[in-house]
Amino acid sequence: MNFCSRCSAQTNLIVPPNDNRLRQVCSQCGEIHYENPKLVVGTVAFYNEKILLCRRAIEPRRGKWTLPAGFMELNETTQEGALRETLEEAGATVRPLKLMAVYDVVTANQVHLFYLAEMISENLDPGEESLDAQLFREEDIPWSDIAFRSVEAALRHFLLDRQQGFSMAVDHKVMR
Amino acid sequence: MNFCSRCSAQTNLIVPPNDNRLRQVCSQCGEIHYENPKLVVGTVAFYNEKILLCRRAIEPRRGKWTLPAGFMELNETTQEGALRETLEEAGATVRPLKLMAVYDVVTANQVHLFYLAEMISENLDPGEESLDAQLFREEDIPWSDIAFRSVEAALRHFLLDRQQGFSMAVDHKVMR
Repeated sequence: MNFCSRCSAQTNLIVPPNDNRLRQVCSQCGEIHYENPKLVVGTVAFYNEKILLCRRAIEPRRGKWTLPAGFMELNETTQEGALRETLEEAGATVRPLKLMAVYDVVTANQVHLFYLAEMISENLDPGEESLDAQLFREEDIPWSDIAFRSVEAALRHFLLDRQQGFSMAVDHKVMR
Repeated sequence: MNFCSRCSAQTNLIVPPNDNRLRQVCSQCGEIHYENPKLVVGTVAFYNEKILLCRRAIEPRRGKWTLPAGFMELNETTQEGALRETLEEAGATVRPLKLMAVYDVVTANQVHLFYLAEMISENLDPGEESLDAQLFREEDIPWSDIAFRSVEAALRHFLLDRQQGFSMAVDHKVMR
């Protein structure tokens, strides 16, 4: 960022008064442009014994398998965002069951929230961000082609939690 | 936002190709400026039977009591952010015990995460954003002067969870 979105003047990377972090501060109007981590929301969705995965059509990790998930939008809840992403990326309509995982993905400046969700039907219709969407049995999960560590963690937690009748507490991990 | 932070040209509020939401898009370089909800991280911190609250020195809700919490910063975990805010706003050093609450505060476009934390000592040293920081017994909590609904929810959940030896699951609520 180099220019002020409020007045278009140049910004400088300085520590504002009463602050202790570098921020982009407008040289004209003084506006401080904060940058903060983003929320990524998604689902671990299942149909009977099978788990839903999408194959990424976009970078990063194009061609790798992922859970349906994406940036949370304004004016929605984390759960609404997770269901929206599941519909957009996989064409799957699901019933949310619980908040299942909170992952601090520090290197990406993201926090990932995954909901456990049950698919209403087997119907899939991959969206533009997906090359494919498929249902996998546990033994068929393409572990060596999973896009992100948070996705792998969510899948492993799902498999454990399923053994316990989905009674486990929210899985909370830090990924650096 | 009216100007592009990348090239300083004017932005227009339009729906970009392959999108379904209005975004500020640069009229010159085409950069899409996404806006997303923010994470607020804080603690419900206790010392023996008392709970830590801070009195806000800043708007909104100046003069009202709140839990130490603030916007998550880049390059930190949610827990690190929660401890940082507790130190900054109350001067309290705490030991985190667990992720206690996740609140979707839709109207504010925020997601609030609260950690249960135990204070290392009774020492307090309110920072610039606090008029005061105090430890309250349950019967002395100023319920009619609590700054935010998420703070009230976190306090009520804390009191319930304490009765159960802090064994309760993460409290997850939506506030509209």
